[in-house]
Amino acid sequence: MSQYENIWADLGVDLKKHDRLLRGLSVLVRRLHRKQKHRPKAMDYFDDILNDPHGHRVKEMAEHREQGGIVVGSYCVFIPEDLVLAVGGLHVGLCAGTNFAEEDADMYLPRNTCPLIKASFGFKVSYSCPYTQVSSVIVGETTCDGKKKMFEELANHHPTYLIEVPQKKNKRTREFFTEELLEFKRYLEKLSGNEVTAERLRQGIDQVESKFRALQRLFRCRQADPSPISGLDALTIVQLGMQDEVNRFAKQVNRLCDELEERISQGIGVTAKGAPRILIAGSPMSLPNWRLHNLIEKAGAIVVCEESCIGTRLFSKLCEPKGSTVRHLVEALAGRHLGINCACFTPNDERVEDVVRLAKEYKADAVIHYALQFCHPYNSEAGKVKKALDAEGIPMLEVQTDYGDSDNQLSMRVEALINMVVDNKKGGVLNE
Amino acid sequence: MSQYENIWADLGVDLKKHDRLLRGLSVLVRRLHRKQKHRPKAMDYFDDILNDPHGHRVKEMAEHREQGGIVVGSYCVFIPEDLVLAVGGLHVGLCAGTNFAEEDADMYLPRNTCPLIKASFGFKVSYSCPYTQVSSVIVGETTCDGKKKMFEELANHHPTYLIEVPQKKNKRTREFFTEELLEFKRYLEKLSGNEVTAERLRQGIDQVESKFRALQRLFRCRQADPSPISGLDALTIVQLGMQDEVNRFAKQVNRLCDELEERISQGIGVTAKGAPRILIAGSPMSLPNWRLHNLIEKAGAIVVCEESCIGTRLFSKLCEPKGSTVRHLVEALAGRHLGINCACFTPNDERVEDVVRLAKEYKADAVIHYALQFCHPYNSEAGKVKKALDAEGIPMLEVQTDYGDSDNQLSMRVEALINMVVDNKKGGVLNE
Ligand code: SF4
Ligand code: SF4
Ligand code: SF4
Ligand code: SF4
Repeated sequence: MSQYENIWADLGVDLKKHDRLLRGLSVLVRRLHRKQKHRPKAMDYFDDILNDPHGHRVKEMAEHREQGGIVVGSYCVFIPEDLVLAVGGLHVGLCAGTNFAEEDADMYLPRNTCPLIKASFGFKVSYSCPYTQVSSVIVGETTCDGKKKMFEELANHHPTYLIEVPQKKNKRTREFFTEELLEFKRYLEKLSGNEVTAERLRQGIDQVESKFRALQRLFRCRQADPSPISGLDALTIVQLGMQDEVNRFAKQVNRLCDELEERISQGIGVTAKGAPRILIAGSPMSLPNWRLHNLIEKAGAIVVCEESCIGTRLFSKLCEPKGSTVRHLVEALAGRHLGINCACFTPNDERVEDVVRLAKEYKADAVIHYALQFCHPYNSEAGKVKKALDAEGIPMLEVQTDYGDSDNQLSMRVEALINMVVDNKKGGVLNE
Repeated sequence: MSQYENIWADLGVDLKKHDRLLRGLSVLVRRLHRKQKHRPKAMDYFDDILNDPHGHRVKEMAEHREQGGIVVGSYCVFIPEDLVLAVGGLHVGLCAGTNFAEEDADMYLPRNTCPLIKASFGFKVSYSCPYTQVSSVIVGETTCDGKKKMFEELANHHPTYLIEVPQKKNKRTREFFTEELLEFKRYLEKLSGNEVTAERLRQGIDQVESKFRALQRLFRCRQADPSPISGLDALTIVQLGMQDEVNRFAKQVNRLCDELEERISQGIGVTAKGAPRILIAGSPMSLPNWRLHNLIEKAGAIVVCEESCIGTRLFSKLCEPKGSTVRHLVEALAGRHLGINCACFTPNDERVEDVVRLAKEYKADAVIHYALQFCHPYNSEAGKVKKALDAEGIPMLEVQTDYGDSDNQLSMRVEALINMVVDNKKGGVLNE
């Protein structure tokens, strides 16, 4: 019995289901993470979390709530953690990357719903996720039809709050989103009993952006050839950043980067130099959705970057406030977030430009455009991205998938892509 | 050869494809419309249009453009025809209810796209729709993911303009939508060369709302038992109202209503009194999507109302201006449109209330909730609607369908519903 079982029970977690979930997760961790070679030592911190995914941090959150603090859960990078920190709250990303609770979700959601939504909603209605249970409120947004309508049902099961994210990117929508965020601020103030002062908000932004800067540094390390860290590990770190305490996490990422930069200066990598380099672009991959990375890296290639909200879309943009009042800072947050080129926006040509630019910056030999099944926004953009990459001579594979378990077909397509890259490189050296 | 062939050719219509389309349409019209019994005489006007669906009205529009006027096409009732009329333009609804051009659409759109979007977009890329071709611009909106992303592709094939429709219903979104409409007004002024004065806009609103009032009157007639008009005919009239000249159309609907009211006073209907009465609620049914109405009415029941954008959502709300300036009027338009309870809004409980209220007003024995395949907004709301109807003891059948041709399964389910209604009514009389 885990030492945390009492806490989980108090949060209303279904212990039997949760136990099954944890066991599945631990099998995955053993099968994928522990088998990797040449891992950086500073992965130890992240491995500890992976081995105890609902333990220490859930305890911290439960204690925070006992002491009167709030915990805010969300499913999208448009919900600014900065504002939550400014009222002394904790933020947790609740997106889930497993079909564990799909059946539970199917009782409520249309069958053609994206697996990310089913998973996250399913975690709630199956009471199998301690992070969901510890959330004082789940803050939704109106990004895609699937999530927008899911939140209506979620409101029957958990306290919720909804932020409207606009759909075009311009001055008017920035002003609109600023007002939505100011209203969210007032809501958080009421919920927490703490006022958002300019100073506290500035601190919140600084904390969040220190995390973003640490992740930017981590991703810059991946631009090296050979890369000093696997794509699987890098993805996992970003995933864990959705839950971890922001300062501790940033410190650990920076500690890892010290080691990675040292490795780079010595030419040490997790593959041989010249291994095929893959950029993944598209729908976010939430914990524990490691499938595509695993297939790619098992086949001797390496994932060097994720153009994703569990990736560059999360941390690339920083605030540029035009003054120091609360309103100025919230305006800057709105600007930062409307600078995220999510496929929910229209038009969204900037995302196409991002993918091409990232492919060059990370010296990617090929791009895999990854869209979850029934994710209309990302599936719609695949064609445009392909066209732009074609023009640059960068091959792209379009993948549409769910959280199901059959890897065969996907694996064959990924291997064919990698073989093509290897042929193109004519004599490029494969991993060890 | 049709007398209009030259016009179609000048518009860039693919005459061969168009000919196939017209022939398909004419088969449908013969099979469904002409076979009906006890039809009101004043259907003659609408039958004439059905028999020449791309003739006279397309000619009017082509001539209007030749004389320097503009034609504005759209796919949603959120695009206010009133503003188009205010600059002396003509408006045409371009939604299509046939899988005629699905293959053409499939070359561009994700496979999991709703058939309404595929059809309408397919009409453009196959150059088979004269109304699409005669449009100076197609005005899109951001209502659902499918349409929002489709417009990005459409912009590669036709001049487009995009209006952002907000997603929550409140003061802030009303203000936002007012600004979007004011920008649209400025765009129309530039495109047409005509200024929108308060007087012209007031006239535009009056014309559009005369049409709405005529349709309200038509629908009130359907509340009688027996109904003096079939659901199939009523639906067709609303569909034709998307294209017809607004004053002429309103006059003809009123002329028909004179006859229907006379029929009601004499107790004359298209079925016997007591025939099962069905309300259809959900995704819009565009021309020539008559399938469900046909199945229901062939089985001896009658469709008494459509809670749909080709139905009550189109015409139920009227402007309530707080003053007489252009801004006041545009504000009133924004208010009128945000009063339309489309499933794209969240939350949207008012739609659930509408369906229950309409079911009572139209004395419906049962409701069919109709959602197009992959239409996430309407599929998501089916459960809530059912729950509310259950509480009132009104049976509901949930139908999810595309434009495919196989009626077998749908027909069986519809008949089972109608038999149940008949049993419930214990001795209710079926149509002759
Ligand atoms: S992909 Fe879009 S909707 Fe999803 S988390 Fe990222 S920003 Fe939010
Ligand atoms: S993956 Fe796509 S459909 Fe799923 S939640 Fe994100 S944007 Fe929505
Ligand atoms: S259902 Fe919604 S999106 Fe479709 S036409 Fe009606 S208002 Fe527009
Ligand atoms: S039927 Fe549904 S998916 Fe199709 S265009 Fe209308 S709202 Fe969008």
